[in-house]
Amino acid sequence: MKKPKWVVEKEKARKTAASETVWLFGLHAVRDALMNPRRERLRLIVTRNAQDKLSEAIAVSGMEPELADPRKFTAPIDPGSVHQGAALEVRPLNWGGLAENCIGRENPRVILLDRVTDPHNVGAILRSAEVLGASAVIGTRHHSAPETGALAKTASGALERQPYLRVRNLADTIVELQGMGFLVLGLDGEAEHTIEAALGEVKARPVALVLGAEGPGLRQKTKDTADQLVKIDAAGGFGSLNVSNAAAIALYASQPR
Amino acid sequence: MKKPKWVVEKEKARKTAASETVWLFGLHAVRDALMNPRRERLRLIVTRNAQDKLSEAIAVSGMEPELADPRKFTAPIDPGSVHQGAALEVRPLNWGGLAENCIGRENPRVILLDRVTDPHNVGAILRSAEVLGASAVIGTRHHSAPETGALAKTASGALERQPYLRVRNLADTIVELQGMGFLVLGLDGEAEHTIEAALGEVKARPVALVLGAEGPGLRQKTKDTADQLVKIDAAGGFGSLNVSNAAAIALYASQPR
Repeated sequence: MKKPKWVVEKEKARKTAASETVWLFGLHAVRDALMNPRRERLRLIVTRNAQDKLSEAIAVSGMEPELADPRKFTAPIDPGSVHQGAALEVRPLNWGGLAENCIGRENPRVILLDRVTDPHNVGAILRSAEVLGASAVIGTRHHSAPETGALAKTASGALERQPYLRVRNLADTIVELQGMGFLVLGLDGEAEHTIEAALGEVKARPVALVLGAEGPGLRQKTKDTADQLVKIDAAGGFGSLNVSNAAAIALYASQPR
Repeated sequence: MKKPKWVVEKEKARKTAASETVWLFGLHAVRDALMNPRRERLRLIVTRNAQDKLSEAIAVSGMEPELADPRKFTAPIDPGSVHQGAALEVRPLNWGGLAENCIGRENPRVILLDRVTDPHNVGAILRSAEVLGASAVIGTRHHSAPETGALAKTASGALERQPYLRVRNLADTIVELQGMGFLVLGLDGEAEHTIEAALGEVKARPVALVLGAEGPGLRQKTKDTADQLVKIDAAGGFGSLNVSNAAAIALYASQPR
């Protein structure tokens, strides 16, 4: 019997995902990935100088580095990348499912990204999410920044530690989170109430914050699915905040304290 | 009589400053600079396409654009710059002195930057400062990001509207602000109290927030001069926040509301 088309496509996607690798670069990102026991590593290319600086991490990882001449660094990364003589080929991290990342902690905070495609913004958001104690950052599988070297560099190590999930459908995920007891707040410049007003006196509860890309903002479906639309209390209208700054403030404003 | 050395140097510095020009690029930055009556403009280079998109702003500015071929865009900007076919040579804005920028508004907020040199970070801080209603962002004349095209692009227009002063000596400026009635809080990862704790119930007062570069943080002299060292209330230790995210949260946390 012929397999239905969707099964064939699913299998194909799974195969592609398995063969997908990412080149991380820069001393900080490479060091943190070498030290991360959960990280599947394939190739390490370093200059003599970078090898010295990373010696401890290389020893921990047990990898055999390939030495490169600093004048012709051969790793397949973008020519403009500030690699500092270190590049590491890895597989994307597998963070597992929604429930295992979003349940368990007391009063968890989760960031949902509605088509935020800029890797620098997503990297900065992962970094803030880690510092501010968010359980997970969740983007969509398509139309969001994939795990790349540029994202890893901006995340400054947080990519190794901060769960970054990518889901098929953001509205479905919002519904799932609501089912787990999350209050889902969509950030929207036109909203009437602030985050603080929406949370009122009850900050001690699971909260998910949804942010859209600068410009388009949240999609209509996302707005319709969220429990409430909220704004950041800002004199100048928060719509013009950079999305990573908006995410940092939103997380901070929603913290139970 | 021979002029003393410091007078000669001061005159030289003034002459250099007067001859200093900056090339802004990108549609957004160029449009906002064309529309800004306070901006002294020298040359405008645009492609036919960019000219169409900027036609209104060009009319407002009264400038005569020089047309460029999109395939060989001749403006003297970095090769990698995303110029979108528009570049504008300008003089840095003259925002005037400390007092005229920091006094007058009710409960003013000011951001001081202690050697933050990355133009993207300073650009993002200008943007957040504008949105969150800060009176001014103040850096040092040396060792801080000069007004450049890259900074203007990240600031996304805020460079034209958000006062960005550069002072000779940051500690002197802190003392001046204290003299005007400002409470000067230095952000420091090792601080004991949070911003909220330091401000207590009295948020309705002039507040200046001092942030250092990622890594080195505040200089000792800066720490000694500030009224109090404070931290951002973050589970993961705010020292690892990106400086523009830290500035956004600090401004937000200090807002009188």
